[in-house]
Amino acid sequence: MEFKKKNILDINSLSASEIEFILDTADSMKEINERPVKKVPALRGKTIVLFFQEPSTRTKLSFELAAKRLSADSVSLAASSSSMKKGETLLDTARTIEAMKPDILVMRHSMSGAPHFLSKFLKCSILNAGDGRHAHPSQALLDMMTIREKKKTLTGLNIAIIGDISNSRVARSNMRGLVKLGNNVRVFGPPSMIPFKIEEEFNVSVSRTMEEALSDADAVIMLRIQKERQGANLFSTDREYSRFFGLNRENLKNSKKDVLVMHPGPVNRGVEITPELADSEISVINEQVSNGVALRMALFYLVSGGSKNENSD
Amino acid sequence: MEFKKKNILDINSLSASEIEFILDTADSMKEINERPVKKVPALRGKTIVLFFQEPSTRTKLSFELAAKRLSADSVSLAASSSSMKKGETLLDTARTIEAMKPDILVMRHSMSGAPHFLSKFLKCSILNAGDGRHAHPSQALLDMMTIREKKKTLTGLNIAIIGDISNSRVARSNMRGLVKLGNNVRVFGPPSMIPFKIEEEFNVSVSRTMEEALSDADAVIMLRIQKERQGANLFSTDREYSRFFGLNRENLKNSKKDVLVMHPGPVNRGVEITPELADSEISVINEQVSNGVALRMALFYLVSGGSKNENSD
Amino acid sequence: MEFKKKNILDINSLSASEIEFILDTADSMKEINERPVKKVPALRGKTIVLFFQEPSTRTKLSFELAAKRLSADSVSLAASSSSMKKGETLLDTARTIEAMKPDILVMRHSMSGAPHFLSKFLKCSILNAGDGRHAHPSQALLDMMTIREKKKTLTGLNIAIIGDISNSRVARSNMRGLVKLGNNVRVFGPPSMIPFKIEEEFNVSVSRTMEEALSDADAVIMLRIQKERQGANLFSTDREYSRFFGLNRENLKNSKKDVLVMHPGPVNRGVEITPELADSEISVINEQVSNGVALRMALFYLVSGGSKNENSD
Repeated sequence: MEFKKKNILDINSLSASEIEFILDTADSMKEINERPVKKVPALRGKTIVLFFQEPSTRTKLSFELAAKRLSADSVSLAASSSSMKKGETLLDTARTIEAMKPDILVMRHSMSGAPHFLSKFLKCSILNAGDGRHAHPSQALLDMMTIREKKKTLTGLNIAIIGDISNSRVARSNMRGLVKLGNNVRVFGPPSMIPFKIEEEFNVSVSRTMEEALSDADAVIMLRIQKERQGANLFSTDREYSRFFGLNRENLKNSKKDVLVMHPGPVNRGVEITPELADSEISVINEQVSNGVALRMALFYLVSGGSKNENSD
Repeated sequence: MEFKKKNILDINSLSASEIEFILDTADSMKEINERPVKKVPALRGKTIVLFFQEPSTRTKLSFELAAKRLSADSVSLAASSSSMKKGETLLDTARTIEAMKPDILVMRHSMSGAPHFLSKFLKCSILNAGDGRHAHPSQALLDMMTIREKKKTLTGLNIAIIGDISNSRVARSNMRGLVKLGNNVRVFGPPSMIPFKIEEEFNVSVSRTMEEALSDADAVIMLRIQKERQGANLFSTDREYSRFFGLNRENLKNSKKDVLVMHPGPVNRGVEITPELADSEISVINEQVSNGVALRMALFYLVSGGSKNENSD
Repeated sequence: MEFKKKNILDINSLSASEIEFILDTADSMKEINERPVKKVPALRGKTIVLFFQEPSTRTKLSFELAAKRLSADSVSLAASSSSMKKGETLLDTARTIEAMKPDILVMRHSMSGAPHFLSKFLKCSILNAGDGRHAHPSQALLDMMTIREKKKTLTGLNIAIIGDISNSRVARSNMRGLVKLGNNVRVFGPPSMIPFKIEEEFNVSVSRTMEEALSDADAVIMLRIQKERQGANLFSTDREYSRFFGLNRENLKNSKKDVLVMHPGPVNRGVEITPELADSEISVINEQVSNGVALRMALFYLVSGGSKNENSD
């Protein structure tokens, strides 16, 4: 197969076979990360700019390591040091970056749609590392990679996504991808955090109780309560949230025996997941992080034309 | 020719033939940036420290990419993480950096003369990336590179520099370089922003009107209104500034037909330049950014002794 | 000799022969830093994460340059961009970092014991770059390297450590190392800054006067007054501190003729040391910085199994 996408902006614009091709490529990248010398010359001489307008530990570090392991040169541009402080428009900032001839621009932005907007004007590849509440495709792809690796399939599975669905780009990208590959996705969370008409828009079901969401589940993706973003009054206390929407051994008892516990991190221990469960044998939270590097190596490789001689969009 | 300068501190200390040699070298570096593999081993094993005491997007990114494309190792030292917060003197900070054996120190500092001061004490090469209101030699050189590339000459041209001349290190460095190469430089701006006796000191003319400044101009260098630095009351509103000192199609009509519109960026659209003009076919703002990387590659290469076997100052 | 330590957490856990082996290795690394091409492929393909929860110029820059000179890939993770802002625990942050498969984690943390704590859970090597008031082993090792280089021995020397002993991880690590190698260590400082029972715990002597501390001294390690950390009222003024606890030509007159003046930097000139003395021929402050890069190269090399085929702890 030849991968023809120039940009990875969201999951929706990828076909099922493109998703599977990305996951296959990531599986083979993963092997590189297990070697004593974790470096291949695939992208030597390529320039990757990491433009993060929102803070991030794991996502930025993951992209940065992925770049280095492919021998690409990467430079970071934080919002705090950026000209946007001086009143420059996003498009002007992006054009300035592009004028320096990067091959790939990885961007995170608080504005939904920012990467799509820029993709209309820039010639370099754009990888969306999270835009507003809209999409976080590399996170969804690494989640899918992890589920497929553990379950040996990625179709026909029951997958629950629990938490603040409304504000979650992780949820949106996972719903798109998992449904596209033929899985049954149920969402559950505080009623105020479930988007209106989500069933029709995303082809998922909304569970009425935690028990219903977790029943026969093959994997549970817990979403992060973003304390640093939200007003404190969406729910009264951590304890209350944990009681009604937190994951624990007890409410997992009707899930599949080999259910996977997943979380994009960082975990609020004792809120979304009990500490015991987060560290248990069914938690794949750290595998998600490991797979994230391999998955991002695959994205860099594929948008650079790794699977073919000529690149087009 | 052998390039014998160890430091690039300002334009004034470069001869006309040195400037032309730098531009010739930058032209050949530019070709590297057009290749699929944008990397040559010229400075492998050399260490470049980027010491920016003032924030910057494009200049720092440009130097950083230039370093990587020559295979040099670069490390950044921001003021915010620097020992200067702990009360260390500039000289002690610089000596500490030098003790780690960098080959080149790129520095930006709010104090005019800081790089000159340090150059008396340090053995490594120093590239001034902007010091106070004094000099910004790499910016002026990339501006000259861009004009020469487009006009096929860099002598006898009419070049207007418009805006806050007093506070602009870009203006000072460009006046020095353009006059040295035999161009006619006119400056124009709010009277409070034109330095006293600038005609004598820089051998330029001060225009009395925008029309006079732009008449028969081959290139117009618009300066940035540094809203983040200046008090708001140097002029009353953006609209007023734009009306009297902004560039637009109308006031360009008596310039040369192929006049170049230039700006060091980031542009305050609608203030210094109309948005339409900034994006037009006569704007070379993005070319300036592209040329900036090549020009800085040339500076790194030349101060490292790229043009000869032995380096001296 | 085979170096078998996986981590460098403090000086106490190193034997005298391990310390000497590290210093020997650092001496040979130092030669690389004098070459025109300061780079060897020893750690190509290894990944080093620099995780600094406290700010630092020289230590972080030193580790970063050491990594690059051995051709390792290094990525930085500052506290300000870290998930710890989002409420993640230290262990979760560290596990996330480890899941990305770094070979070495260099960490600085305000909490004494943080690197020891993490070393129980992580498989990658940990280098302590300073934890609270507890330990700063790479600083003590570079101090020992510098003394040994200048004195041609590192046993039987009289070494004074002057200043705020209580709050100094540099003092603690130096006391451990210097005593272990058979030197006579005297400490002196404001009585409120001398830990209770330090003689018994560290096997050093507490001097009653500056004169006593400096008498026949081979080297004097001046500690930094950490103005940015301490309350202003530990002593009344800089001038008073300087008068009673500062180093100058006068109070050095009964030291050995070739006494070494040392300081971990950054120096508060005129407080801990007179400016004249800091720049004098007996000051080795800049040599300490130079040796720091070589010493950290040695640590990277040794914990990566540079001295053997198989690595164990």
